[in-house]
Amino acid sequence: MGNQRKLVFYGAISVDGYIARENHSLDWLIGTEGEEDTGYSDFYETVDTILMGRNTYDQISILSPQEFPYKDKQCYVFSRKMTGSNEFVKFINEDIVGFTQSLKEQEGKRIWIVGGGEVLHPLLQGKLVDEFIIQIAPSIIGRGIPLFMPGDQENKLTLVDVRRYKQFAELHYESR
Amino acid sequence: MGNQRKLVFYGAISVDGYIARENHSLDWLIGTEGEEDTGYSDFYETVDTILMGRNTYDQISILSPQEFPYKDKQCYVFSRKMTGSNEFVKFINEDIVGFTQSLKEQEGKRIWIVGGGEVLHPLLQGKLVDEFIIQIAPSIIGRGIPLFMPGDQENKLTLVDVRRYKQFAELHYESR
Repeated sequence: MGNQRKLVFYGAISVDGYIARENHSLDWLIGTEGEEDTGYSDFYETVDTILMGRNTYDQISILSPQEFPYKDKQCYVFSRKMTGSNEFVKFINEDIVGFTQSLKEQEGKRIWIVGGGEVLHPLLQGKLVDEFIIQIAPSIIGRGIPLFMPGDQENKLTLVDVRRYKQFAELHYESR
Repeated sequence: MGNQRKLVFYGAISVDGYIARENHSLDWLIGTEGEEDTGYSDFYETVDTILMGRNTYDQISILSPQEFPYKDKQCYVFSRKMTGSNEFVKFINEDIVGFTQSLKEQEGKRIWIVGGGEVLHPLLQGKLVDEFIIQIAPSIIGRGIPLFMPGDQENKLTLVDVRRYKQFAELHYESR
């Protein structure tokens, strides 16, 4: 297990724990002071594989219609309906936990979980997530897509770093 | 408005945003490294009034049966059923928002909201909460009593301080 590569959640949430509004809007996040100062590009260099759900993929396609933002990475999109692959991503119909466990056993750099909710949830329940790097934006938005869905997962973490980027607080945890 | 005294949420949550398990247990919190280092006693000195819900009051009575922990403060417990007062607390049947607004207009030190959920929720919706001092404990517990209940509240905050107390990250926000 110790030689497996790391599976990481990296992303921003509101103070009340949402990754986006129910309509996927990030208006509460965009333009927050400090956004340009976070260590995103350093983090991005440590990743060679990206996992996301179909909803996140669709949102990225809407937000970045001109250019897929992760085209230099191996991207897997979990979907019940889509199959095959396109120029940028491969659609995966397999069980999320089983597929991700196999990926972790391959050689490579970090695997990044983009977006929370339905993809993160089974990975947490399967205790496959090794690290969390969470930027907290200074807003309470009331309703939205939660990073963590209620469920039976229990994960004891170790706080390895706390950083401040102007209005963002970044918490870095490792699973114990 | 500027002269009103401050209404503050101060308390600990899990990484997934719960203040306690569904059965009110704090086992995931108790014994976390750094608990004794937080600025609780400094904070406590800045408070003269405490607000809580009936459930929180009952839990405090169970956890501290020998000695009420806030006996040198004016404590108000919001309850639909209990009336009158006892040696330590006064039960309030009035509307939470109206009562709290009146309290804020009185002279005094900070007002502390102990516990989240049902008491915090209307106060957030009424935009009465001036500060949040949140300690995040290094655990994902899956289910519990959320600090923030879903609803139509929107609160833009300013991050004023980020501190680390060993395994706790403390975020201090003011409402804008």
